[in-house]
Amino acid sequence: QFDFLEEMKADKIREHLRKFTQLPHLAGTEQNLKYAEQIMKEWQMFGIDSVEMVPYDVLLSYPNESQPNYISIVDHLGNEVFNTSLAEPVPQGYEDISNIVPPYSAFSAKGQPEGDLVYVNYGRTEDFSQLQREMGINVTGKIVIVRYGKIFRGNKVKNAVLAGAKGIIMFSDPADYWADGIQPYPDGWNLPGRGVQRGNVLNLNGAGDPLTPGYPAKEYTYRFSPEDGVGLPKIPVHPIGFHDAFRLLNNMGGEIPPNNWKGALNVSYRIGPGFTDEFKSQKVRMNIHTNNQVTRIYNVIGKIRGAQEPDRYVILGGHRDAWVFGGIDPMSGAAVVHETVRSAGRLLSTGWRPRRTIIFASWDAEEFGLLGSTEWAEDNARLLQERAVAYINADSAIEGMYTLRVDCTPSLHTLVYDITKQIPSPEEGEEGVSLYKSWHKRDNWTNDRDAPRISKLGSGSDFEAYFIRLGIASGRARYTKNTKTERYSSYPVYHSVYETFEIVEKFYDPSFKRLQAVAQVRGALIFLLADSQLLPLDVNEYADSLRKYAQSIAQLAQKNLVEMETYKVSFDSLFSAVENFTVAARDFHELDMYPLQLRIMNDQLMYLERAFIDPLGLPGRPFYRHVIFAPSSHNKYAGESFPGIYDALFDIQNSADPAKAWEEVKRQISIAAFTVHAAAMTLTPPA
Amino acid sequence: QFDFLEEMKADKIREHLRKFTQLPHLAGTEQNLKYAEQIMKEWQMFGIDSVEMVPYDVLLSYPNESQPNYISIVDHLGNEVFNTSLAEPVPQGYEDISNIVPPYSAFSAKGQPEGDLVYVNYGRTEDFSQLQREMGINVTGKIVIVRYGKIFRGNKVKNAVLAGAKGIIMFSDPADYWADGIQPYPDGWNLPGRGVQRGNVLNLNGAGDPLTPGYPAKEYTYRFSPEDGVGLPKIPVHPIGFHDAFRLLNNMGGEIPPNNWKGALNVSYRIGPGFTDEFKSQKVRMNIHTNNQVTRIYNVIGKIRGAQEPDRYVILGGHRDAWVFGGIDPMSGAAVVHETVRSAGRLLSTGWRPRRTIIFASWDAEEFGLLGSTEWAEDNARLLQERAVAYINADSAIEGMYTLRVDCTPSLHTLVYDITKQIPSPEEGEEGVSLYKSWHKRDNWTNDRDAPRISKLGSGSDFEAYFIRLGIASGRARYTKNTKTERYSSYPVYHSVYETFEIVEKFYDPSFKRLQAVAQVRGALIFLLADSQLLPLDVNEYADSLRKYAQSIAQLAQKNLVEMETYKVSFDSLFSAVENFTVAARDFHELDMYPLQLRIMNDQLMYLERAFIDPLGLPGRPFYRHVIFAPSSHNKYAGESFPGIYDALFDIQNSADPAKAWEEVKRQISIAAFTVHAAAMTLTPPA
Repeated sequence: QFDFLEEMKADKIREHLRKFTQLPHLAGTEQNLKYAEQIMKEWQMFGIDSVEMVPYDVLLSYPNESQPNYISIVDHLGNEVFNTSLAEPVPQGYEDISNIVPPYSAFSAKGQPEGDLVYVNYGRTEDFSQLQREMGINVTGKIVIVRYGKIFRGNKVKNAVLAGAKGIIMFSDPADYWADGIQPYPDGWNLPGRGVQRGNVLNLNGAGDPLTPGYPAKEYTYRFSPEDGVGLPKIPVHPIGFHDAFRLLNNMGGEIPPNNWKGALNVSYRIGPGFTDEFKSQKVRMNIHTNNQVTRIYNVIGKIRGAQEPDRYVILGGHRDAWVFGGIDPMSGAAVVHETVRSAGRLLSTGWRPRRTIIFASWDAEEFGLLGSTEWAEDNARLLQERAVAYINADSAIEGMYTLRVDCTPSLHTLVYDITKQIPSPEEGEEGVSLYKSWHKRDNWTNDRDAPRISKLGSGSDFEAYFIRLGIASGRARYTKNTKTERYSSYPVYHSVYETFEIVEKFYDPSFKRLQAVAQVRGALIFLLADSQLLPLDVNEYADSLRKYAQSIAQLAQKNLVEMETYKVSFDSLFSAVENFTVAARDFHELDMYPLQLRIMNDQLMYLERAFIDPLGLPGRPFYRHVIFAPSSHNKYAGESFPGIYDALFDIQNSADPAKAWEEVKRQISIAAFTVHAAAMTLTPPA
Repeated sequence: QFDFLEEMKADKIREHLRKFTQLPHLAGTEQNLKYAEQIMKEWQMFGIDSVEMVPYDVLLSYPNESQPNYISIVDHLGNEVFNTSLAEPVPQGYEDISNIVPPYSAFSAKGQPEGDLVYVNYGRTEDFSQLQREMGINVTGKIVIVRYGKIFRGNKVKNAVLAGAKGIIMFSDPADYWADGIQPYPDGWNLPGRGVQRGNVLNLNGAGDPLTPGYPAKEYTYRFSPEDGVGLPKIPVHPIGFHDAFRLLNNMGGEIPPNNWKGALNVSYRIGPGFTDEFKSQKVRMNIHTNNQVTRIYNVIGKIRGAQEPDRYVILGGHRDAWVFGGIDPMSGAAVVHETVRSAGRLLSTGWRPRRTIIFASWDAEEFGLLGSTEWAEDNARLLQERAVAYINADSAIEGMYTLRVDCTPSLHTLVYDITKQIPSPEEGEEGVSLYKSWHKRDNWTNDRDAPRISKLGSGSDFEAYFIRLGIASGRARYTKNTKTERYSSYPVYHSVYETFEIVEKFYDPSFKRLQAVAQVRGALIFLLADSQLLPLDVNEYADSLRKYAQSIAQLAQKNLVEMETYKVSFDSLFSAVENFTVAARDFHELDMYPLQLRIMNDQLMYLERAFIDPLGLPGRPFYRHVIFAPSSHNKYAGESFPGIYDALFDIQNSADPAKAWEEVKRQISIAAFTVHAAAMTLTPPA
């Protein structure tokens, strides 16, 4: 059964990664189409049943080639006395490469706003709130500057717009993108001072293509006008590295902020508005000429037809498009998918065929808002809703050198543990040790249990439409850093030109054994979900997690004990729903099964995740429909449990009408309780 | 296979009808609970596997017992010079019965508005539009009086509110509720002059309980405050009979309306505002004291567990609550359900058991907005979405004495024809003739084909949540009048106290053979859907219907040829989607099937209807989610095909911004085309 684990080779992964990181392959460019064609051809050669290219026409965003984006300090005459860099220094060996897109914020509004800077820490809701309430600073008409990190950059932009700013600059502070004792690339894996994090600044909340929310962006599809597009920011946005950030921050005036607002640059981090008296007449001007344009993108979809249940789908999908070379993001993941397809082809040639259908996907335009994966989910929603068993995501396979990281739905916990016990640790000196044991030692989930930590799914990668919109059991796995000691966000060179093949080969995974281990985890998930008679989904784990989440959200609410009494807020209905679910899960036994009965029980397992979907969506977010898991409205990256209740509780802090705000908390508790009851119902005998 | 047809007996149906029409049993009253308990007990005795009572706490509406509702003509001193009746004369034999609710408009706002009357024909969108544009009359601050008929009364009320009226009176005009040559009840089946049509005046658009839209109204469920409830009218509403209507209309002044605004009363139908000069100082005052209150209702749910596929559900549901005795509405239908359950019990006792699970439902509070059926659908949405094969509705089984009437989804057409060929005609002189033949002769669908006419489902009964919200293949059957010669709306005594057992026994179906025939149609649908190996759903019929609907909606748009060119509106994408669907349907073959393969194909058949559901709903109507079938926004009763396009085209007439209105038409065409493509996809081989 574990033959396919043997089949996946480190050297092959190295080869795939090398091949697909030679040239920049931004979504919508010719090179990214070429890679798509090459992947299609190779998957066909690997021998899977079918491979097709599936195009969509979506809104993308590119810098204007004849008018570069930059930020200036201008004097009282309007002369530019300082300009930020137009590009990152190109890494060694790539000097002759063209088509490296300069750093920019995709989907920024165009414009040349000029004004005083205000520094707002990470640009979180609480940072803006602290700025306005405690520091008494209004950013209306100002340009805000915030550091990258902690939350999704699109949320920072949204907060700046809500606060009234007319522009926003984001920078990578060494406090957040620099590891101690490590050299900048190419001598180490730290971010050089002129390196910049690209990224989209949309607030899509799962809508996919901004112009065709809810529907696939096909040729005949009706498109909203750009003014009515979903999630497009109304102000200019631009990213810079810490070299340029130093120059903008250096002369800032105003108050010195609290210590937790200070980064690691040699500046005071004064919040402004504007520069010190000496430089008071100088202003900051943003020059942004980025264009939105409807552009064709291409998913590659490969299939292996299931032998017994062709109408049950297990999906392994990851994106192909990269900001530049994509050495880590996404090609370390795409190389793993490629190797999985190759291995599956080999097995097919020996006569094996999985019980269920396996679908492999190379998504396009993930960097522009998960567009390829979301459009395909919209295109195939009817099929996926009835037939999809699970979705495994394959974005970057490595972001550190320490141990495994898994985020997944609770019903996959047991399978992940079982699988990792069969896979060898890739670490030197751990020969004969299982990945499970290595992982357990390095990241014990001590608060929860004596086992390796598994986290909730947030968003920010292509599983979003599958999990949060459609309710398909989902998970992701990658190699990560030691989160207890390494405090930087993501990995330092994230979304910069320095994400090359070499950074992986020299620093992250010289033997390619870590990527091999990740390939084995992702591959084993797919193969076991597709080939097990009884679906390896554990409903008791879901029950345990629901109890934990209910306790945790109730505890969060307890901070407001007096108000809870005033407004008669109780979590009893939710706890009783969880209890009911726990009983239903416990009583959901495996019976002695003839084929039809097996299918019936597997349907119950498959549809459990679907049972948490509310077609009405979360408040104001029609495409975030999972009642148990979704990011909060304040940070797309982090998964929250009971996000409806969580957001309602969050909003209490900022509400002018607490009675109304608490009514919303009560309504969300009621929806959560109902949803858990409804899910429990799906586990009871069908008649 | 057709044993059960033999089992259903006319005499038994008579017995059931007699038993459940003795006393008034309005939703929320003790008597309606008693009937529920009796039904539960009898279903248990009939021997089906399980029967349970399922309560919900929903918003109902009752007249105030100490302050009656009525309408007055008042003189210039405010004295009441005429008052409408407080009750209908009680029919012979029922003189000692208490708890007959007087005629009222359920969920009317309270209030005592006073003003001039304006007559607005049927109160349709086009009537109000004609009044305002052609006749130049503004009803702001006026009380409008409209005749019942043509559209759902709730739409009339909504139109009155939108037009600015401060009250609305609805009356039954003899032109719409009187059959030529027939005596009023009890000597015939016409509506007496003092008879009045009760009814709710909500605009729920499928929301169910106004205070818990989207969720079941359980004890722990969060309830909106009544001001935030869905669909509650903001003005007083009251119904009257034509005897009282004559008095209100008789002295009206103003212009004489066009002939198609004139009913059959001996008055001029002048539109007002107000009375003729002679009576100018007289005003009309409404006195409405109706109360909304959260009240417990009870569904009775009975089940027969399926032998092979217990997780596939075939549902027969109809309501039990009645405005008064419910002789026709709904007990003629409930008696049929009762007889079906009895027959099923008999078959079970012989050792038979259906392949799939059968669910029987006696819904409560249908008259208050389809509340019992919608709350249960909300409660069980997760199960129904994955498991429900079909829903057959069982409201009034008879509304005329002429022939069969069937409204259903296209995939049921063939089954309906097949079944009716096995059932004998109930008509005298047609011994040995099939119901199909009798029906064919009386109502040939000549425009469409040489076969009996089958219509689209509209709304106004309990199938709504199952079909329009959840996308479960649905149908209904009843005995009806000759629609070519009998032009009155519904049947004359509809929702009056004169809907007694006797009206059925004396006039509509003395032998109870018509009800028996309806029982056989409904019963055979349920039994064949539950027991056939391959589901008897015909995808080619769906393809044919889609083509017809596409042609018809495109033709409707053609009225605006010039604008279609200006705004570049094309139906090509829709026609091409229909063509694609037609090919997929034709290629959807029955294979030689082992059990699992049969299940796979049956799933495709079952889920086809679901494929037409758009989770985003129709514009402004989140619970109307069926893209092919829904009522238009202007009349809940009538089913429209492609309702999104239909409404967008309708709105063009009233739009101040035609460019924008045509954009919406284009968007709706695109959604329809996508949905038909997506549905076609579900019919292609799963992998």
